Amino acid sequence: MRTSGLRSAPEAVPARTAEVFRTAAELMVEKGYGGTSIADIAQAVGMTKAGLYHHISGKQDMLYQILNHATDELERVVSTPVRLIEDPEERLRQLIRLHIQGSIEHGLVFTVLMSEMNHLAPKQQKRIMGRIEEYHALIRDTLQELAGKRRLRKLDVNIATMHIMKTITGVARWRYQDFTSDAEHLIQETIAYTMAALLKP
Amino acid sequence: MRTSGLRSAPEAVPARTAEVFRTAAELMVEKGYGGTSIADIAQAVGMTKAGLYHHISGKQDMLYQILNHATDELERVVSTPVRLIEDPEERLRQLIRLHIQGSIEHGLVFTVLMSEMNHLAPKQQKRIMGRIEEYHALIRDTLQELAGKRRLRKLDVNIATMHIMKTITGVARWRYQDFTSDAEHLIQETIAYTMAALLKP
Repeated sequence: MRTSGLRSAPEAVPARTAEVFRTAAELMVEKGYGGTSIADIAQAVGMTKAGLYHHISGKQDMLYQILNHATDELERVVSTPVRLIEDPEERLRQLIRLHIQGSIEHGLVFTVLMSEMNHLAPKQQKRIMGRIEEYHALIRDTLQELAGKRRLRKLDVNIATMHIMKTITGVARWRYQDFTSDAEHLIQETIAYTMAALLKP
Repeated sequence: MRTSGLRSAPEAVPARTAEVFRTAAELMVEKGYGGTSIADIAQAVGMTKAGLYHHISGKQDMLYQILNHATDELERVVSTPVRLIEDPEERLRQLIRLHIQGSIEHGLVFTVLMSEMNHLAPKQQKRIMGRIEEYHALIRDTLQELAGKRRLRKLDVNIATMHIMKTITGVARWRYQDFTSDAEHLIQETIAYTMAALLKP
């Protein structure tokens, strides 16, 4: 268990492991969790079922490990670097940038797969939700800091946190279906939209 | 086929039909499309399988009919009334209000079920996407009208349309899991957030 104070970022998993997670995630998004079998996953990642069972105990465990990996990545690629940024406005801008960039580079599919979380065991679900709640707290604390500096509009910080999350993950879901738009343009527009929504003019 | 000019809103379906759609949708969200059988649906809605097959040709048809019903509802409850509002800012405010209110009253679950759209046949998928694209066009045209009146910030209207959609449907998805927040407060905060993001100060 990590302490909530000084923490080190999760290390990146080996490329092959990340590749297996991504391929399995893509399959589960395409066919739905219920429509995907371990045999399908084994075939897609080029392993035998026995080989796959060496790493996971079953389909639910696979989903849990994928989503756990996704939250590790979120922490490694977004939370850890942005916590070092002192100015709350700049921290939020970078959080939006790194989250969208990270989704694009490390797997938009993980965002989409989050909607299958209801298939996890209650304990697993609680753990993933806890990880996501930590991320929400990072956004919420940043908004509260902005409010303390009188730079925030009069708004409900909890609802605004949710709006920011939905906007960011919405970009990932949208881009998953449509790769035509320019990522940098998308990032800049999303930052500008969110900042205008949040900050006093 | 409706013409794109003067159109009348789809009529509300009988309460029993709406109830069947909602119950089936809830089951599909809970168990996933792949994990739900026609027998499960029949049991949940209190019909025999034979009775259910009188109305639908199979599970895919059920999903299609549910999502078609959801887009009918969106048109009946949101698009049709807001098209009558002349001022674009007021039209957008009412669109956000009616969409969130409509989701809450007529079935938040339909928004959540939209993520199962990939299980439809290509033709069905295209039809549902077309209905949703009509709704996007309503938002996009409203933004363009605001831009014409120089009331819009300098922003990419396509990306802003997507942000608005994700914020509204995000509220529905979020509220589906958490019924603790006050709907009117949620609606007001969402309107204020979106308007601040879009309009010149």
